[in-house]
Amino acid sequence: MSQWKQIQQLDVGMLEHVDHLYDHTFPMEVRQGLADWIETQDWEAAEHNESLAAMLFTNLLDQLERSCAQEHNFLQRHNLKLINQQLQVKYISSPGLIAHVISSCLQEERRILSTACMQQQGPMEMSPHN
Amino acid sequence: MSQWKQIQQLDVGMLEHVDHLYDHTFPMEVRQGLADWIETQDWEAAEHNESLAAMLFTNLLDQLERSCAQEHNFLQRHNLKLINQQLQVKYISSPGLIAHVISSCLQEERRILSTACMQQQGPMEMSPHN
Repeated sequence: MSQWKQIQQLDVGMLEHVDHLYDHTFPMEVRQGLADWIETQDWEAAEHNESLAAMLFTNLLDQLERSCAQEHNFLQRHNLKLINQQLQVKYISSPGLIAHVISSCLQEERRILSTACMQQQGPMEMSPHN
Repeated sequence: MSQWKQIQQLDVGMLEHVDHLYDHTFPMEVRQGLADWIETQDWEAAEHNESLAAMLFTNLLDQLERSCAQEHNFLQRHNLKLINQQLQVKYISSPGLIAHVISSCLQEERRILSTACMQQQGPMEMSPHN
């Protein structure tokens, strides 16, 4: 199951932590729309490799543009168009920065999932000595 | 038929003009989600009447909050929450400004609809003298 699918199964309290990760710096539409692709790219390496970051960013914009062209709903298409323009303005001259943002979001999601998992399991039981 | 419903029936070329009206200044989610209510308020009067503007703005935020509470989709709920916060930051000390923005958007929509209508009818025919 993708990380994003696991995130969506969290309870409301935990989802609020996820809420805080996403705004115009990295919109949740992009995280959700390109979930599988995002999770299979090496954003951590791209943080320190400008040409890899530029390639990933171009690829991300291309995919957003394709999603936009295929979208029939006027409001969704408008949002995707707006997001594409805003990301270009914000990151075109510093793609390493969006790599850092995405890498941090994915890492923070993993931290939230791990906290939720530990809360579900309860405090670790001491294994009895036999 | 509400103005917003008429807008959505425009062809793609005309819809692009509508696209340019909406961004974070006044998000299209709000225009669409509260379409009927927005069209029945006097935003033009509120531009020059700060207490009317403040009342309309509070009402708008209340309705956004209710929509948010009723929304089951995580992404949509996240977007509504974000929009509510952003509008508060932007307009809480100057509600007359959002009244002006909304009034201008509605007026511009009417101009677009009227242009589309005239294009559909073609050049006005001269009525023959009997």
